[in-house]
Amino acid sequence: MYNIETIEGGVCAAQGFFADGVSAGLKPDGAKDVAFIYSESLCDIASVFTTNKMAAAPIRHFRRYGTFESNFIVINAKNANAMTGDAGVEDIDEVLAVASSRFEGIYNPIMSSTGVIGVRLPKERIKVGIRKFNLRVKNSNAAAAAIMTTDRFAKQIAVRITLKDGGVFHIGAIAKGAGMINPAMATMLCFITTDADCHSEAMQEALDDGVVRTFNAISVDGDTSTNDTVLLLTNRQSGCYDAAAFKEALEQVMLHLAKAMVRDGEGANKLVTFDITGARNDAEAAKAAKALSNSLLMKTALFGEDPNWGRVASTIGASGIVCDEKRLRIAFGDVCVYDKGTIHCDAATEARAAEVMRCSEFTIACDIGVGSGSFQAYGCDLGYEYVKINADYRT
Amino acid sequence: MYNIETIEGGVCAAQGFFADGVSAGLKPDGAKDVAFIYSESLCDIASVFTTNKMAAAPIRHFRRYGTFESNFIVINAKNANAMTGDAGVEDIDEVLAVASSRFEGIYNPIMSSTGVIGVRLPKERIKVGIRKFNLRVKNSNAAAAAIMTTDRFAKQIAVRITLKDGGVFHIGAIAKGAGMINPAMATMLCFITTDADCHSEAMQEALDDGVVRTFNAISVDGDTSTNDTVLLLTNRQSGCYDAAAFKEALEQVMLHLAKAMVRDGEGANKLVTFDITGARNDAEAAKAAKALSNSLLMKTALFGEDPNWGRVASTIGASGIVCDEKRLRIAFGDVCVYDKGTIHCDAATEARAAEVMRCSEFTIACDIGVGSGSFQAYGCDLGYEYVKINADYRT
Repeated sequence: MYNIETIEGGVCAAQGFFADGVSAGLKPDGAKDVAFIYSESLCDIASVFTTNKMAAAPIRHFRRYGTFESNFIVINAKNANAMTGDAGVEDIDEVLAVASSRFEGIYNPIMSSTGVIGVRLPKERIKVGIRKFNLRVKNSNAAAAAIMTTDRFAKQIAVRITLKDGGVFHIGAIAKGAGMINPAMATMLCFITTDADCHSEAMQEALDDGVVRTFNAISVDGDTSTNDTVLLLTNRQSGCYDAAAFKEALEQVMLHLAKAMVRDGEGANKLVTFDITGARNDAEAAKAAKALSNSLLMKTALFGEDPNWGRVASTIGASGIVCDEKRLRIAFGDVCVYDKGTIHCDAATEARAAEVMRCSEFTIACDIGVGSGSFQAYGCDLGYEYVKINADYRT
Repeated sequence: MYNIETIEGGVCAAQGFFADGVSAGLKPDGAKDVAFIYSESLCDIASVFTTNKMAAAPIRHFRRYGTFESNFIVINAKNANAMTGDAGVEDIDEVLAVASSRFEGIYNPIMSSTGVIGVRLPKERIKVGIRKFNLRVKNSNAAAAAIMTTDRFAKQIAVRITLKDGGVFHIGAIAKGAGMINPAMATMLCFITTDADCHSEAMQEALDDGVVRTFNAISVDGDTSTNDTVLLLTNRQSGCYDAAAFKEALEQVMLHLAKAMVRDGEGANKLVTFDITGARNDAEAAKAAKALSNSLLMKTALFGEDPNWGRVASTIGASGIVCDEKRLRIAFGDVCVYDKGTIHCDAATEARAAEVMRCSEFTIACDIGVGSGSFQAYGCDLGYEYVKINADYRT
């Protein structure tokens, strides 16, 4: 047995990790825009990157290292360093050389970027930012704020895991992401640090597995931005580890951040869980759940607070999974509106379903009735504000 | 050789076809809402229906006939007769029985519906409408108007095909569809009539083939409404036929209507052709073109008239096709903004690209640079009006 509790400290909660954000003049209002994460000892790294074929320069730069250890990450907002070719990768080398020469003991430094595509990195400004870094600072707030783009709030979390034998380790993280994620492909970045004494293979496995039910539950596979990145670093300083506790705590951290991204969806006001059960298998349940969370008609119905269950049924029918209107059940919260061919949509039921939809968080539950596959995807509404943000984003 | 020219008459242009629309009180403002199409002689029918697993009652009713001839179609707006179970199919039998008893020579009557999902058909009103029909009227305008839902304008077209030997036949059609089609899944209906003397197999083949480059170029496969329907009827009265001319004219008719649907996209102001060339094959070109036409970020950039080519590149990269930023070329109209690694986005080029985007119709052309596959998909912008229409649609 073990205990997982949420604590303060974000990405600096694990022993030996430091982070901060500074202003390098990339954001016009003087806000923080360049961050670092530093570990006083070398870390093993597990990673998940975008499947986008136009993967940005930072990802191609990372991959050049192959398997490796590192202890330093620089992250900038406002510029994605994507579609910038080999020059974009060379720009990263040039920028990171400043960090290596200014600070001692920097090893295999990593860069991560988010912002506009197709513009060369503002190297000189970022270099100025790097020179401002103080590697002894533990300011997760500032780092989380610096990597924000259209985010309305900074995203961080940390947990302490206490094992039965009294051993303690920590997992902390910062993240950014405020788009509709998919299909809008706004970039998501997440940096997770831990002092757990885990092997790099176990770490990668736990990360891959957790991503499926967290960040990939807010994004359809393959339809990702040029820059999407999740990095997990361990410096093993706690000397403690328990595989089950580590997996559970890691997934809890990622689910918290994934939900925060949906809650912060551009112009979004609702966090809706699409809870699919009874599908032929988990993969089909995921297909239906993601189809619902990505449907434009569904998103606008959420915005209009209209319990339009016909759109739910139609979206499931179009998702390509095995289903049948005679076996389907649909509920908004605990209000069942359609049950295996019977329409429960008298005025009173509609009113109760509409009331559920006026909440800022609720579940739309669909039982497909053909098997035991299940999946939960997370989505948000789409309103005028989304159009405004995205019509004007570059200008 | 042959000549194809556009003529008046819509779905009544071919010999022996009649159509009209009447008001049956389904639309609150007394507008026409029930239409018929009638042929004085029996027709062979080719069909393409939605792949949605929740196919509506009219489609299940049609399929019950198996292969068959018919000469009469009733179409209603405001109610989709979807998710209504076996009762929905029985409702159709009851409604069509009125037509069969009132008019002589009705054979295998067909029904088609569009509107809200999950509400039983307002049978009595539709019966009243059917009793108002006059089968000797040729009013394609009225039929096209009656089947409109959120459409801003009625959609019809007709062409006359003159063969080298002097033989003449006609193809005419009406259609409705004004949603984003996909991923919004607003229903599209299209009824095509011809007096060409073609075999039913050739007819089905020409329809299947033409749909790929027309209605399916504004819609991703599989993600369709519960009611999507294309019917092609021939009564062979012209006694003329030429396979190549028929195929070309049929595709011309369908492309006109498909483009009209995009142009009439809910709240849309722009018709954009996504012209993909140089893909590994046509299927990959279609995948990229449809990904672009369906991307929310792309649609909002069109609305904002922002030549944000980075979103184009990212969407292609995420579409899953073989591509490489060093081979890609992107142009807005004739303004090349990115060419195989070189960014042409100085202020003057951006201004010219933005000027292209202020047009109501333009092309975004992408050469993938890896093969000879090509495809054109058609999309529109997404603005505030789309959100307004769809947040309020049921109420």
